[in-house]
Amino acid sequence: MQHRLLLAVAALALSGAAHAQFQKPEDAVRYRQSAFNVMGAHFSRIGAMVQGRVPFDAKAAQENAAIVATMAKLPWQGFTPDTEKIKSRTKPEAWMEMDKVRAGADKMMKAVADLDAAARTGNLDAIKKTFGDAAATCKACHDAYRE
Amino acid sequence: MQHRLLLAVAALALSGAAHAQFQKPEDAVRYRQSAFNVMGAHFSRIGAMVQGRVPFDAKAAQENAAIVATMAKLPWQGFTPDTEKIKSRTKPEAWMEMDKVRAGADKMMKAVADLDAAARTGNLDAIKKTFGDAAATCKACHDAYRE
Repeated sequence: MQHRLLLAVAALALSGAAHAQFQKPEDAVRYRQSAFNVMGAHFSRIGAMVQGRVPFDAKAAQENAAIVATMAKLPWQGFTPDTEKIKSRTKPEAWMEMDKVRAGADKMMKAVADLDAAARTGNLDAIKKTFGDAAATCKACHDAYRE
Repeated sequence: MQHRLLLAVAALALSGAAHAQFQKPEDAVRYRQSAFNVMGAHFSRIGAMVQGRVPFDAKAAQENAAIVATMAKLPWQGFTPDTEKIKSRTKPEAWMEMDKVRAGADKMMKAVADLDAAARTGNLDAIKKTFGDAAATCKACHDAYRE
């Protein structure tokens, strides 16, 4: 009983989340921004290798691509309808064209899965190709829907 | 050539990261906060099941635990020495006792790996036990090193 109580207190203190995925719309915004931030950081590390700014390291590329592939699935759940009015870099157009945003997200997740598969082979040319394709899917949505 | 150039431009626009892991100390702070945020969001979803606030869903628990285990490895790289003076909730004590912070991080990663293993079995009792243990490792560092 004592242990369960401690556990409950600890978890509440840590999470703040109740049964909803996000307690407040601000939490959903912060979550999606966080997921994009982590994804971008690891994507850019692959980019540095692809562009020859750092030496190619197959193991590092594989680790980064795996993280990118995991992160790519996450941010979308943070675009909840109740976040439309919360200030962020998301343009109003995104809310008017959420079906297109979703289609773009699907394309991105597919491209990132291809990058992940390429990174697992350790073939730099395959990584370059799939990295470029994935970057293009990011850019498409950023151009259309991010300020 | 055209493709490579486009690729380079797209990646630079996306990343901002050069050969260093983080271009600016602020980026490292933002990165570690983002990683903790995503980890906390998914950890709390397991917590909601553990505490019976939402029905137990073995598949969801497994997915959330896998994300937590991936995220748990990430934030530490954001505690770079050049971020000591950047405003965040990290207490000055953390910088004076970075060996203890690292030891705490190792404990947490181990506990979270155990939670991930338990979630893969789908056994709620095992998940409860390992969730409580993992929560305790989070709390230990937060109490000591987070404002």
